[in-house]
Amino acid sequence: MSEVVTKATLAKEAAAVLNRLTTEQKNEALLHMADALITEQASLIAANEEDLERGRANGTSPSMLDRLRLTPDRIAAIADGVRQVVELPDPVGDVLEAFERPNGLRIVKSRVPLGVIGMIYEARPNVTVDAAALCLKTGNAVVLRGGSAALSSNRRIAEVLRGAMSATAMPPESLQMIEDASRSSVDEMLKLNGLLDVIIPRGGASLIQNVVQNATVPVIETGAGICHTYVENSADYGMAEAIAVNAKVQRPSVCNSMETLLLESGFAAGHLPALAAKFRELNVELRGCEITAKLAPEIKPATDENYATEYNDYILNIKVVDGLDEALAHIRRFGTMHSECIVTESQANADRFLQEVDAAAVYHNASTRFTDGFEFGFGAEIGISTQKLHARGPMGLPALTSTKYKVVGTGQTRG
Amino acid sequence: MSEVVTKATLAKEAAAVLNRLTTEQKNEALLHMADALITEQASLIAANEEDLERGRANGTSPSMLDRLRLTPDRIAAIADGVRQVVELPDPVGDVLEAFERPNGLRIVKSRVPLGVIGMIYEARPNVTVDAAALCLKTGNAVVLRGGSAALSSNRRIAEVLRGAMSATAMPPESLQMIEDASRSSVDEMLKLNGLLDVIIPRGGASLIQNVVQNATVPVIETGAGICHTYVENSADYGMAEAIAVNAKVQRPSVCNSMETLLLESGFAAGHLPALAAKFRELNVELRGCEITAKLAPEIKPATDENYATEYNDYILNIKVVDGLDEALAHIRRFGTMHSECIVTESQANADRFLQEVDAAAVYHNASTRFTDGFEFGFGAEIGISTQKLHARGPMGLPALTSTKYKVVGTGQTRG
Repeated sequence: MSEVVTKATLAKEAAAVLNRLTTEQKNEALLHMADALITEQASLIAANEEDLERGRANGTSPSMLDRLRLTPDRIAAIADGVRQVVELPDPVGDVLEAFERPNGLRIVKSRVPLGVIGMIYEARPNVTVDAAALCLKTGNAVVLRGGSAALSSNRRIAEVLRGAMSATAMPPESLQMIEDASRSSVDEMLKLNGLLDVIIPRGGASLIQNVVQNATVPVIETGAGICHTYVENSADYGMAEAIAVNAKVQRPSVCNSMETLLLESGFAAGHLPALAAKFRELNVELRGCEITAKLAPEIKPATDENYATEYNDYILNIKVVDGLDEALAHIRRFGTMHSECIVTESQANADRFLQEVDAAAVYHNASTRFTDGFEFGFGAEIGISTQKLHARGPMGLPALTSTKYKVVGTGQTRG
Repeated sequence: MSEVVTKATLAKEAAAVLNRLTTEQKNEALLHMADALITEQASLIAANEEDLERGRANGTSPSMLDRLRLTPDRIAAIADGVRQVVELPDPVGDVLEAFERPNGLRIVKSRVPLGVIGMIYEARPNVTVDAAALCLKTGNAVVLRGGSAALSSNRRIAEVLRGAMSATAMPPESLQMIEDASRSSVDEMLKLNGLLDVIIPRGGASLIQNVVQNATVPVIETGAGICHTYVENSADYGMAEAIAVNAKVQRPSVCNSMETLLLESGFAAGHLPALAAKFRELNVELRGCEITAKLAPEIKPATDENYATEYNDYILNIKVVDGLDEALAHIRRFGTMHSECIVTESQANADRFLQEVDAAAVYHNASTRFTDGFEFGFGAEIGISTQKLHARGPMGLPALTSTKYKVVGTGQTRG
């Protein structure tokens, strides 16, 4: 048996035990894990140093190395994240429906763990701990397949977490770390129906597309975000500028940042030069449609390819539109159904935008950067779903559960 | 453009219109559709006769021909089914969560249509109408790809339903029927990400496996049911016999009928001969484990392949087990997570069974045949989900919806 099958089989067996644990038992194990991250931090940093060394030898960029790096402060923050997951309410066992049928059957629909969750993700080692904590809190076993750049760190993290579990009711087999860094371990996970109940990819567009295109295991698609902000003539300039700037530059590398700014023509005529100057001041490279180029000639032309690109960078497309219908059509064509915003003083147009835009989160007069589990008040999230099945938008703990109907009778048969 | 892409594109455009219709507008269109089925019944029966003729020429079995046949009574029942869908509450717009964040953002999570639903199914033409009614009621456009055996019937049904829509606010393009009966139209639908939001297969195991194995569009898996009834020593014989008989013979062809009866050894020792005689009287062919064969020597031996087969027929496996743990292990190995039952007077064992068996519906002292939208009180169903994501068990109208977060601010930006 391959590493993937062996470990997924162990995870499935552990899932049956996890399904029977109480919230208190799960929380106790999580607190042990948080403590162990602190007490074992020297060995975590030593393992992480191996990854950094390999990264430096491979010519990894300083910013990537920084994302990879574990420090005592970062480990403390990661452990704190686990403790915050302990504080979140456990959705498992929640009764969603309970009713009695005329024939006397009593039916209860309640939340149960999904079973075994496969996570396929890239570099940052904090994801290893976050994902493990969220899955285990909801009674799921987890098979983690992180990026090769963080392999030493991830292996040591898994050892530490599993060691911490061994003193608790939670079986260490509940957490499995795939060490085979080749593409074939990913391919194998994608087809592991019967052992994995769901796969959640986290990472760049190519990682996610590989999972969506090739998985036969059900997938929760996360992440890709080509987000728009559409500003109408009626918008307050100060509010529009603040929202657009925040959506672009507060953290350009993330999925809910803005890639294209749509301006209604009257707003553009009055304010585009000032807004363009503001973005340049913030080191944002601008690309624009033909009308944009007339109003601010120094802006490079934007192509359809630009509109279809998630930059995750200090680059912004600007397009002038005739009004709401053209803005909606542009978003329908280029949006990824993540987060979309309208800035307007027209309640009627805001209502239409919120109703008609097909996205996980639609905003009126607020930055798209709020699409986030913590900002929504859900606590840590396993990702932001951009699909329509099962979960959509920031995924709190309930997104990591399924349901079951329990039916209790007194001998009923169907007529 | 192929037929599939052309029609799915039209469906996607129609979905944007459907998303804006009120419940009243959708219901009005559905009532028109129900009426049109009645007024156009002569042409439906004529089209159906073409299918029957082709079927007879192809040597289709009488029972299959009967499933395919439309009669005035059956058309009336199908039209009644549409009227029942009108009576069901519309989940679209239901507010699932509404809260205000400390920064003043007001967040509302409400139900929205999924968008465009692809249905891939086999013979019976009533599925065409049922599926269309359920999808349209929930504001979804639907692309139907039925079996070639019912092509003439399905084509005429689609014409009649679309004709009925044309006098209403619902665009006829909301319903698309794929007429290309070749395998390639199915293959194309399975990869139509961006145009189809979900695919729901309904039919036999091979149809469903083809969809699960090859779709890149998210799938709601339905149907396969290897269901068990486990009877403990403490069970009342009369109740156990009634439940087992009902689960097997009330309608053997459906997914929630029983395929394997597990008997605790004491119950078997006392009652297996009587129970076997009862099943034989009902023309059920029995296959049994070694212990079964000792207690009732005329029973053929059951193999692992038998235990892994969904007979959908008058055939039943019987296996004697030591107790609950062995029963749970057998169900874990051979069950399809559909419907599972324990018959016992032990509350502790019933509780363990309901908790530990991983299935959409778990029963204590009632027949598995109740896993059904009507029996659960949900009304007509699009299918019974056997997967854990999005929907599990009988799918009522809410299973045909997604959600959206609407976020309303006053200029908030993220710090």
